Amino acid sequence: MPHDSFPSREGASLPGLEDTQTALNIVWTMMAAFLVMFMQAGFALVETGLTRGKNVANTMAMNFLVYSIAMLGYWALGFGLQMGGVGPLATLGGDTFLSREFSVTLLQRQHGLFGGAGFFLSPQLYTPGVATMFFFQAVFCATGTTIPTGALAERWKFASFVLFSFAVSMLIYPIYANWVWGGGWLSALGRNFGFGHGHVDFAGSSVVHLTGGVLALVGAQAIGPRLGKFGPDGTVRAIPGHSAPLVVLGTFVLAIGRFGFNAGSTLSGMDGRLAIVAVNTVLSCAAGAFAACLYTWARFGKPDLSMMCNGLLAGAVAITAPCAFVSTFSAVVIGAIGGVLVVASTLYVEHELRVDDPVGAISVHGVNGAWGVLALGLFADGTYGDGINGVYGPVRGLFYGDPGQLVAELIGISSNILYVGCAGWIALKVIGRLVGNRVSYADEQRGLDVSELGLEGYPPQDELALAAPRPARESLESDLLGLRSPAE
Amino acid sequence: MPHDSFPSREGASLPGLEDTQTALNIVWTMMAAFLVMFMQAGFALVETGLTRGKNVANTMAMNFLVYSIAMLGYWALGFGLQMGGVGPLATLGGDTFLSREFSVTLLQRQHGLFGGAGFFLSPQLYTPGVATMFFFQAVFCATGTTIPTGALAERWKFASFVLFSFAVSMLIYPIYANWVWGGGWLSALGRNFGFGHGHVDFAGSSVVHLTGGVLALVGAQAIGPRLGKFGPDGTVRAIPGHSAPLVVLGTFVLAIGRFGFNAGSTLSGMDGRLAIVAVNTVLSCAAGAFAACLYTWARFGKPDLSMMCNGLLAGAVAITAPCAFVSTFSAVVIGAIGGVLVVASTLYVEHELRVDDPVGAISVHGVNGAWGVLALGLFADGTYGDGINGVYGPVRGLFYGDPGQLVAELIGISSNILYVGCAGWIALKVIGRLVGNRVSYADEQRGLDVSELGLEGYPPQDELALAAPRPARESLESDLLGLRSPAE
Amino acid sequence: MPHDSFPSREGASLPGLEDTQTALNIVWTMMAAFLVMFMQAGFALVETGLTRGKNVANTMAMNFLVYSIAMLGYWALGFGLQMGGVGPLATLGGDTFLSREFSVTLLQRQHGLFGGAGFFLSPQLYTPGVATMFFFQAVFCATGTTIPTGALAERWKFASFVLFSFAVSMLIYPIYANWVWGGGWLSALGRNFGFGHGHVDFAGSSVVHLTGGVLALVGAQAIGPRLGKFGPDGTVRAIPGHSAPLVVLGTFVLAIGRFGFNAGSTLSGMDGRLAIVAVNTVLSCAAGAFAACLYTWARFGKPDLSMMCNGLLAGAVAITAPCAFVSTFSAVVIGAIGGVLVVASTLYVEHELRVDDPVGAISVHGVNGAWGVLALGLFADGTYGDGINGVYGPVRGLFYGDPGQLVAELIGISSNILYVGCAGWIALKVIGRLVGNRVSYADEQRGLDVSELGLEGYPPQDELALAAPRPARESLESDLLGLRSPAE
Repeated sequence: MPHDSFPSREGASLPGLEDTQTALNIVWTMMAAFLVMFMQAGFALVETGLTRGKNVANTMAMNFLVYSIAMLGYWALGFGLQMGGVGPLATLGGDTFLSREFSVTLLQRQHGLFGGAGFFLSPQLYTPGVATMFFFQAVFCATGTTIPTGALAERWKFASFVLFSFAVSMLIYPIYANWVWGGGWLSALGRNFGFGHGHVDFAGSSVVHLTGGVLALVGAQAIGPRLGKFGPDGTVRAIPGHSAPLVVLGTFVLAIGRFGFNAGSTLSGMDGRLAIVAVNTVLSCAAGAFAACLYTWARFGKPDLSMMCNGLLAGAVAITAPCAFVSTFSAVVIGAIGGVLVVASTLYVEHELRVDDPVGAISVHGVNGAWGVLALGLFADGTYGDGINGVYGPVRGLFYGDPGQLVAELIGISSNILYVGCAGWIALKVIGRLVGNRVSYADEQRGLDVSELGLEGYPPQDELALAAPRPARESLESDLLGLRSPAE
Repeated sequence: MPHDSFPSREGASLPGLEDTQTALNIVWTMMAAFLVMFMQAGFALVETGLTRGKNVANTMAMNFLVYSIAMLGYWALGFGLQMGGVGPLATLGGDTFLSREFSVTLLQRQHGLFGGAGFFLSPQLYTPGVATMFFFQAVFCATGTTIPTGALAERWKFASFVLFSFAVSMLIYPIYANWVWGGGWLSALGRNFGFGHGHVDFAGSSVVHLTGGVLALVGAQAIGPRLGKFGPDGTVRAIPGHSAPLVVLGTFVLAIGRFGFNAGSTLSGMDGRLAIVAVNTVLSCAAGAFAACLYTWARFGKPDLSMMCNGLLAGAVAITAPCAFVSTFSAVVIGAIGGVLVVASTLYVEHELRVDDPVGAISVHGVNGAWGVLALGLFADGTYGDGINGVYGPVRGLFYGDPGQLVAELIGISSNILYVGCAGWIALKVIGRLVGNRVSYADEQRGLDVSELGLEGYPPQDELALAAPRPARESLESDLLGLRSPAE
Repeated sequence: MPHDSFPSREGASLPGLEDTQTALNIVWTMMAAFLVMFMQAGFALVETGLTRGKNVANTMAMNFLVYSIAMLGYWALGFGLQMGGVGPLATLGGDTFLSREFSVTLLQRQHGLFGGAGFFLSPQLYTPGVATMFFFQAVFCATGTTIPTGALAERWKFASFVLFSFAVSMLIYPIYANWVWGGGWLSALGRNFGFGHGHVDFAGSSVVHLTGGVLALVGAQAIGPRLGKFGPDGTVRAIPGHSAPLVVLGTFVLAIGRFGFNAGSTLSGMDGRLAIVAVNTVLSCAAGAFAACLYTWARFGKPDLSMMCNGLLAGAVAITAPCAFVSTFSAVVIGAIGGVLVVASTLYVEHELRVDDPVGAISVHGVNGAWGVLALGLFADGTYGDGINGVYGPVRGLFYGDPGQLVAELIGISSNILYVGCAGWIALKVIGRLVGNRVSYADEQRGLDVSELGLEGYPPQDELALAAPRPARESLESDLLGLRSPAE
């Protein structure tokens, strides 16, 4: 706390109106980023709740460490690859992302595939504006990086997880993010080829969620199903998790964090659109959860709690791309479709693709991530987005007169599946050669808490409670200070 | 993220000082609303912790789905009924709640019972100001709607819960909220009849909590006690919950969310009073928890943890109406009385009224909600509130010279009990005819997780850990990529 | 909610630019303070997870009540002692902390040991600026006060805990905080003796964490080890906690809260440095967790989850003092050293000092708190802090040319250990005479949930589920409203 009040700083010029607006933008963006960071806890809770008691510590540990890995990896390499070729970010005002001259130079040699400056955030560019942008982008990267831990849970080697997460946060995620948010080729589809405003994704349906979902699919397919998931006769067995409260609490945390995720993506507290973004987000989440409730109730006779949770998350993921561009009615429709989609897709992945995804990450993030950018290409109503990606006029989807926008979204989806799918597959292949991807059958049976961490998630208590032999009274008493009645 | 930096938007006029202030108000109000939303998780945790292990998934599911129900119901109907007759909300600045002309017209035909515009948030009025107001009011509605789930826990039919929650969020809550916050007749008691500033409730002791508490009382009375709560010989049995950590964590979450609830109710980041509101809130919470601790310690020989939690919540609920109008000393007194009141009231409800309220919702929200508005009528010290509800001069309670203010608070309490009580009773009666309100005895005995959701909150793990038969080695291995040592 | 829109307040002067900046400062500081408050839940979760099932309710209860105790104690006495001699806090603008004249007077008779005004926050100084400062300082005090509950867990008498916590929040913490943040003698070491900028601690490595850690060491030493921790033959036994998910969730909550803690310590939303603070904080946390992971992996053959958590917390504590003054590279180094230090220190405390600290509070808060202020004295790079503590020019550490700064940090550490250590020891000694500090051996064996609270953290469920005898059908049915099919 800067207690600098004693000497009044005479002659220092007071900050002006534009400085104040910049400050508000930074405050808003940082506060939103703190909420996004909180989502890491949400992922940890949901994934742990949906997995078994014998893998609790391991699932928690992956979700815990991925936060550190993503931050360090994104700091070292990711941020530079993603944003190191972008122009001055006027919305954060005050200072520019990189110094203005530097960024203009970069801009001119921007080839649209990845950036090339800003690695390790060197001191000369460590300004408030850059720090804000780094922080906000880093928490998004962490979100994308944590998604596969759910799909590969209960059988993934810890060493492989560590290496894979570095690969995602340092290379795989930032490059696709550059294409959409770093001034790369997907963002330029409008300017260069007339496809709407290029691939638009307000807060990450494709950049974060489709990326995570594709990695989840590739990973779960590559590593194979958990022991006993698919019977020798082809039957599919349900393997319920161990704690509904963890799942619901985690879903709430993800829902709260989503407001920072979506509304914060204005990157500007001066842009009142952030309120509209938040309302669309909450309505889509609500519609997703409620649709999943009704759909499972109708189909299975009882509402399914874990599907309600996944329905809310599906609604959240689906509205993430279009949240700034649609009406409340569209938001409800988008969310409701997401809620049904996630149930149907989960069944499809399990029964048709026969891929074992313990938490439904492929359906929540992959399928609904794709649905989200598609929904933007359909429902964007022309009330927002003038100038986005260098194209004048607001963003419109197919239903509001611009089929080119839908095409740009489709190109974005396809290139994501192709690029992220291949990159993820290669990464797993290489890591598998180095350290192996999957634990042994015996370790899987015993639980990864014991094999990978040497610590049980819920250590047995009976033994502990009784383990303490009564010490000789004299030996202990000397340690005690002011102890009035150590014996009964 | 709007990467619109490439074409500099020449000629666009920069936002001015008033725009900046509006933006700060929106940022503050939205951030506060996110905190309020988080309270839904708090309710879920507290209620689940205080109920039994066999009803964990069901209690969680109600608290989870009520969020979606309240959002959708409030969007469709509630917001229009509550706020659709109100004047321009100057505090949010920039744009008006409805267009100014429209709202003036509405104002003129405002009859004081309910509003009539803004249903489904149609595109023409979907401005940042309206979206902010909708979001903030919606999360308050969700809070009120979730309160009865605690009092009716462990025996309520899920279908009845769904219909009842729609009734509350679409009709029951918004109409009373209109009377106090939407320009309705209770807010006009000062202008029209000279009772102080009319019924003043800064952040919802009566609008949210008394409403929720009355619904909890009517519901718990109507649906009857849990099996075994009251013995045939008249004895009252304690039915402890299943998890103290969930209760305490939930209470903390509710305490954090309360800062958004109370301080956010300035609806303005420009109003420094928000800091005073927050300090009063934390002091009242602290005094409530500590008073409940001392009171139970003195009365029962040991401090009672769940009563400490309810004491904090009682302090929070009680300060919610007067938080902006009182001194720190009054805040401590109000909270301490709340903390004692909640213990005494819980015993009274259980032993005298013989109503079974598993979580103490009637005492926390009902009794302390009423105490909160009364406290405003007693302790408001004339330091704030000039112009509220169209009455000049600050708000004063009885102890500071204005007995009329106390009368207005009493009228507000009475009309709440009468209206909400009757409306809630009718809603339950109708819903009972349609789908039944209570599960069968057999289902209650077995637990609602199985009967209502088909899913246990904590699925048994021993079986699972052993359930997986070892697959034929060949069949599995082909699925695995880069697997170095699948066998030990 | 102030629905004061009906009568337009004609003639009221609109707030100007400086008012707007003040409002932004208050909004930022309060929002940050809400995040800090949330850390109380984090401490409760971590400590409860790391202790045994038989002490769950007790550990939760201490962490819950300490919040109330700290708020009340700090309100009554602490704030006045800490800040009651400080000058006008220009950063909060608008109004001064105390009225300007008053504070100038105070300043003149400021002796540098403690303040003497502001007790009970009397109405005449209850302005938005003072309320903001009180709230932010109070949540820091609560953090410091809650640290010892972990080190003394599973054997501390509840009555002793209550009295000790009042002593800490009313006297012990505020006096040291005055020395550093309240204009006291440690802050004046630069002005008076030329040691750099005096003892600088941006957000509390020494003020909050070293204080808490020293109290933890003194307390754990004084009260003695848990039964069975050290065998008669000198062996050290591991006593694992009961829930990894609680530990990880709590660590996440502490990590999120830390952003409010550190970045909020600008006390100004206008100071863009807050973004740099947050980035340094997240990088140090990440490095701490990852370093602890690698270090335990290398040393013990498997990564240790609870040490990863403590590693993150160590990184957080260590960066708390220097967060505003260092580069990202230094932040990573500081955090990584913290992550290794916490593991080594935990082993040292247990095996060499033979002090039983169930959660590692001494190592996390004490050792890393000291490391944090030392790190400032080493790594501060001269990019920030002009005018802090009345010394011109930015803050520089030893590696950037100012050995005096390191001396000031060392003096701050030494005086903390001396003063807090003695004060804590005396407090425990006195309280021990009054009510006793430690529960009896029998109670410890049985668990403190039963002995201190009369409530188990996880009440047994089998009994409950079956406890309810089927009531006579007639007697119950009359209670039920709209019940369609009570029998199956």
